[in-house]
Amino acid sequence: MDSHTPPDPAQLFSEERSADVVAASFARTPDPRLRRILTSLVRHLHGFVKDVELTEREWAAAIEFLTATGQACTSTRQEFILLSDVLGASMLVETINNRAGEGLTESTVEGPFHMVASPPRELGADIAEDGKGTPCLVTGSVAGPDGRPVPAAAVDVWQANDEGFYDVQQPGVQPDLNLRGLFTADGEGRFWFRSIVPRHYPIPQDGPVGRLLEATARHPNRPAHIHFEVSAPGYRTVTTHLFVAGAPFIDSDAVFGVKPSLVREFPEVDDPERAATAGLPNPFRTVNFDVVLRPDTADLEA
Amino acid sequence: MDSHTPPDPAQLFSEERSADVVAASFARTPDPRLRRILTSLVRHLHGFVKDVELTEREWAAAIEFLTATGQACTSTRQEFILLSDVLGASMLVETINNRAGEGLTESTVEGPFHMVASPPRELGADIAEDGKGTPCLVTGSVAGPDGRPVPAAAVDVWQANDEGFYDVQQPGVQPDLNLRGLFTADGEGRFWFRSIVPRHYPIPQDGPVGRLLEATARHPNRPAHIHFEVSAPGYRTVTTHLFVAGAPFIDSDAVFGVKPSLVREFPEVDDPERAATAGLPNPFRTVNFDVVLRPDTADLEA
Repeated sequence: MDSHTPPDPAQLFSEERSADVVAASFARTPDPRLRRILTSLVRHLHGFVKDVELTEREWAAAIEFLTATGQACTSTRQEFILLSDVLGASMLVETINNRAGEGLTESTVEGPFHMVASPPRELGADIAEDGKGTPCLVTGSVAGPDGRPVPAAAVDVWQANDEGFYDVQQPGVQPDLNLRGLFTADGEGRFWFRSIVPRHYPIPQDGPVGRLLEATARHPNRPAHIHFEVSAPGYRTVTTHLFVAGAPFIDSDAVFGVKPSLVREFPEVDDPERAATAGLPNPFRTVNFDVVLRPDTADLEA
Repeated sequence: MDSHTPPDPAQLFSEERSADVVAASFARTPDPRLRRILTSLVRHLHGFVKDVELTEREWAAAIEFLTATGQACTSTRQEFILLSDVLGASMLVETINNRAGEGLTESTVEGPFHMVASPPRELGADIAEDGKGTPCLVTGSVAGPDGRPVPAAAVDVWQANDEGFYDVQQPGVQPDLNLRGLFTADGEGRFWFRSIVPRHYPIPQDGPVGRLLEATARHPNRPAHIHFEVSAPGYRTVTTHLFVAGAPFIDSDAVFGVKPSLVREFPEVDDPERAATAGLPNPFRTVNFDVVLRPDTADLEA
């Protein structure tokens, strides 16, 4: 009988060495970026398990939860994105990858409702095709960090109605493409259109993520907002929201999308003449959003 | 128009405060243990995302991978457990929850193949019902930490054959319940049975976890082992493996199940008389496993 070299304990698993041993198993990963990500993932995952001393029953519950989350996904529903959202991971990734810099418009999550292309509309058009809700005049401008206007910038907007639903959630109830519009800023980078004041709404609650929110006494609501995606040649596109100041849940967005710089008053204007000029009933609400884009130097750097 | 209190920036999301803000959202979780787990999870998850500065494309790939992992699960396959296994999380949870203490037999993962009850067999029985493989006499004992034998301890064993397959993986090829047995130790806590030397085998490679192993140049194999679950009234049950010293992959188990204290030589014996006594052809292999159980004081402490 041969005598064997005993296995090297330093290569074998133990509570103390667990992260080192598992990280070492990824040492031959050909892609250095994948190797780096998995090494860090292992260290943080093991750190978590050790920190809470996860029990076997809790581990089994976690396996069940993750499995149910995967199985709740369909072609029209992404429960893992929702989980990432309510754990703040989506916003963290978004924020890290879109560091705005002083004076630049901050971004926030795109969300799942930009699923249809917004219809091109003339400046001043009313995107509330069914005329329901509190009328609102939205004005704004697009400029670079030096204050120079960005003429003909593309301003893509979409929003929920005053019951908290997007058009795609209420086919047959709302007109197709209701509360969506793709505008082209004028020669001085200005834009304006008519809409309504949006309402807050809940994220889907009928899946594993909904059960998580319920078990943790968290509400599922996103505060009222209008989505903007603003782009122009030579500038980095910004995907963001404009939030309604003082609206419900403004301090507790279920997906952590609110940044202070994106919150605006929507003051009421009682001025029949301005209302007539804007093509809105009097009184009406107003909001202004001056967007500052970052020059895109990626082409130069590449 | 009312003037609104602006949202409190300390409650709103930012790259610096992300973990604090999200952890705070779980502050009203009624179950304190769930609150503690989620708070720690959030801190480690955000720590990971910040450490690697995960890109939006990498985040999307992670969402896709997790979704595919959930969708690969069926009533007979658990891909998330497999993921937990290859990330060492299963072994870490197992190890934390079964700290053996000096001199006690260490545990390891149960694995997915204890899915059928082992048939009760007499001491000395041959569990290799098809007679294929290298014959092996397995002997051992069960005792407490003071060395006192544990009479009539239940010794449940199951193992792969010499091609690396369990009976349930080869219905119609292997006899039902091949290489499984539930033994009762004798009055001095001793047990013995006949079997074969097991072979290493790969974990399932045809799903997302298999793709992860391939992308990271990791092999999918578990080194050869015999599963043991040893229990007796008044003692804590130990679920563990006996590994074959010097066998392939003994230093690189795909699921990190090897602990040095569980590795044994399986020496060959060339002794016609002993072979005849054991009921095995000569020569044959042998292995001995002396199990030390921890007295279960849980009832007293409860």
